[in-house]
Amino acid sequence: MDTTKKTLIVFSGDLDRALAAFIIANGAAAMDDEVTMFFTFWGLNILRKPARVRARKRPLPAMFGAMLPRGAGRLGLSRMNYGGLGARLMKRVMRQHNVATLDELIATAQEQGVKLVACTMSMDVLGFKPDELIAGVEFAGVATYLSEADEANVNLFV
Amino acid sequence: MDTTKKTLIVFSGDLDRALAAFIIANGAAAMDDEVTMFFTFWGLNILRKPARVRARKRPLPAMFGAMLPRGAGRLGLSRMNYGGLGARLMKRVMRQHNVATLDELIATAQEQGVKLVACTMSMDVLGFKPDELIAGVEFAGVATYLSEADEANVNLFV
Amino acid sequence: MDTTKKTLIVFSGDLDRALAAFIIANGAAAMDDEVTMFFTFWGLNILRKPARVRARKRPLPAMFGAMLPRGAGRLGLSRMNYGGLGARLMKRVMRQHNVATLDELIATAQEQGVKLVACTMSMDVLGFKPDELIAGVEFAGVATYLSEADEANVNLFV
Repeated sequence: MDTTKKTLIVFSGDLDRALAAFIIANGAAAMDDEVTMFFTFWGLNILRKPARVRARKRPLPAMFGAMLPRGAGRLGLSRMNYGGLGARLMKRVMRQHNVATLDELIATAQEQGVKLVACTMSMDVLGFKPDELIAGVEFAGVATYLSEADEANVNLFV
Repeated sequence: MDTTKKTLIVFSGDLDRALAAFIIANGAAAMDDEVTMFFTFWGLNILRKPARVRARKRPLPAMFGAMLPRGAGRLGLSRMNYGGLGARLMKRVMRQHNVATLDELIATAQEQGVKLVACTMSMDVLGFKPDELIAGVEFAGVATYLSEADEANVNLFV
Repeated sequence: MDTTKKTLIVFSGDLDRALAAFIIANGAAAMDDEVTMFFTFWGLNILRKPARVRARKRPLPAMFGAMLPRGAGRLGLSRMNYGGLGARLMKRVMRQHNVATLDELIATAQEQGVKLVACTMSMDVLGFKPDELIAGVEFAGVATYLSEADEANVNLFV
């Protein structure tokens, strides 16, 4: 099978959309494709470390940081979330069906060489500092995305 | 005109997004393109039969099945839905403008040979059984999606 | 660098998704790509003039027109909007980081020759008249979208 390239822009920070993005990314990586995922806006939440990271911030970014979920374990569903209950129930059903958790999917992605890129402009706007994100994430802007997308044969916006 | 291939991942179960997906799919099929639509997560709601289908289910999937809308006729809008009122009003305006209903768009898609594929993993997670979906739907996983997307020149995530 | 073509379907009328779409579009246009943005459904709100435009409408479209936001300055966030407070705060942070406003991004897009196309069917359904949209917008349907997408190497649905 030929190696081809895929990119995904992960704009959404919903658990269900994040799962879909990583399932596609891992599937493609398993077929030897090069995969790059660009995390922008709420998608950055997926890459946050679960523990609070001390960082000097202006008041507004500090507030955003405090209000937005820290990492894959705390995301909600795009619908039927009911204050987190829906997300908990979905995780339970996924476990019953031996579907990997989002944390496991992220780890697998990194093991398979999927490139995880955080959008620097979104980092600025939400006030996230690089060390608030999990290890191994790269940082770049829209020009990098576009040059990767130009080489890819599948480009999705999730 | 050359026949080319298109794929759409229909993740959303909102009436408005479903309409957009089928309008694109039918437009492409009318231009002799091969079109495959992959329905994942809430997108599966679009393909459910309107009548209740008896099936043995564990409690959680049974609850999901009971809470999620059954079929194209019961979907809500992604915004301005107001408990279904918005969806009803939009359908009325569409009728005034002779725009096809979602049910009609699905029928046209099937007549034109658009392939409708339900994601098996999402079926498991939401606890849907194959005979809860309308006739003619195929079942497959992410590997099938990726091999179709590799052959297509337009791949969208809706 | 070769000129290539990009298309974006802008379905969403959320400020954050609109920003993402225009940042990608302007980035591509800056790299000499031909870019076409198709605005459908709620995405049309982005192109509305801020001032009220007098137009004869049937009651339902008139109601839609009155309820939907008029233009880039009045859009809300897809999450954390809190009745517009979130959108205001995000705009303030963007200003602190010298990120362009959506209005400025739209102006830049038009200056750079990004083609802005309003979906005629969505115009009908939401009851928008052409002169309710900003100057320079073109009008077309799904067939036009598909023929542009066929020539493009990146096609996104936002």
